[in-house]
Amino acid sequence: MAKPLEFYFDYSSPYGYVASHRIDAIAAKHGRTVDWKPYMLGAVFKIAGTQPLVSYPLKGDYSKHDFLRSARLHGVPFRFPSKFPLGTIAAARGHYWLGESKPAVVHDFDRAVYGAYFAEDRDISDSGIVADIAASLGVDRAAFMAGIELPATKAKVKEVTDEAIARGVFGSPFIFIDGEPFWGNDRLDMVDQWLATGGW
Amino acid sequence: MAKPLEFYFDYSSPYGYVASHRIDAIAAKHGRTVDWKPYMLGAVFKIAGTQPLVSYPLKGDYSKHDFLRSARLHGVPFRFPSKFPLGTIAAARGHYWLGESKPAVVHDFDRAVYGAYFAEDRDISDSGIVADIAASLGVDRAAFMAGIELPATKAKVKEVTDEAIARGVFGSPFIFIDGEPFWGNDRLDMVDQWLATGGW
Repeated sequence: MAKPLEFYFDYSSPYGYVASHRIDAIAAKHGRTVDWKPYMLGAVFKIAGTQPLVSYPLKGDYSKHDFLRSARLHGVPFRFPSKFPLGTIAAARGHYWLGESKPAVVHDFDRAVYGAYFAEDRDISDSGIVADIAASLGVDRAAFMAGIELPATKAKVKEVTDEAIARGVFGSPFIFIDGEPFWGNDRLDMVDQWLATGGW
Repeated sequence: MAKPLEFYFDYSSPYGYVASHRIDAIAAKHGRTVDWKPYMLGAVFKIAGTQPLVSYPLKGDYSKHDFLRSARLHGVPFRFPSKFPLGTIAAARGHYWLGESKPAVVHDFDRAVYGAYFAEDRDISDSGIVADIAASLGVDRAAFMAGIELPATKAKVKEVTDEAIARGVFGSPFIFIDGEPFWGNDRLDMVDQWLATGGW
């Protein structure tokens, strides 16, 4: 059985959001599944010596233009959030806590959090809003709020982020196919080709 | 008559090199030509607050892997130069001097300089080597050496670089289609789509 693709992303990453609408279908074309791995991109920026795209002169303006253009191309609803970037640790903790306690909703949770931020302009840095999203999927809100504060939940986000850095991840989205790394939404066509051909 | 695509690049840019093998054919498919515009990426890095890709932790290692992978995908001969990055002002001045004095060879010159650096590992920061390349295309070597020292030639490189910055160019390759900006070799498929559809 082929290994799932690994899809590292941060919930505050516009290109991660666009890619999140595409990655499952690309993998499925080739009989593969996707392991979604939210992590803390801000921690990686410190190690990698980089910053959010929008904070660079020139590149920042281009990026804002290109986020919208890329979303339109792929038919993904997108409006630039009024608060950007923001901290996504509550959402990432929610993902890993749900992974243990209610795995059937994790995928819907990831999509709902991304949509809340990039389509509805909700402040997903607010753990209460993240809990509302979980509750809308049938998760017990109080249990969620407690779950994201558990030491094991917090440790999991740190562990995945450390693992990402150790594997050379420096952006979002960042995808591995059997260890082969691909960075960026604009590399999903190459991901598709790699899956189709087995690499070159 | 449709405007030529504008192809901004630096001769020391690996992705610019790979794109240089692809851009003319993509434009030609849609009845368009390409205006090749070498400029000084180093000057842009200062304004944009960025550095050569390879100098970043994590991103640097990925980039070196991806240069080779991208070149293989497109059948472009590539070996990572022993001296990288390097200054390309002699080559850029050569381009603009030839544009005035022997325009028929400019395109061959651009390709030959790129190939000398990325396929043959020659030191194109050396104006003598750049002059040898021009001479191999039938250009008078002494005239070339004198031409790249002319104040008007030097001013032209600065003018194109300043113009690039003013237009928001921050990387290589960087392409405009009727004013619409596209950054990166990995955006050439999007360039193709934009030309085919007129944009979205």
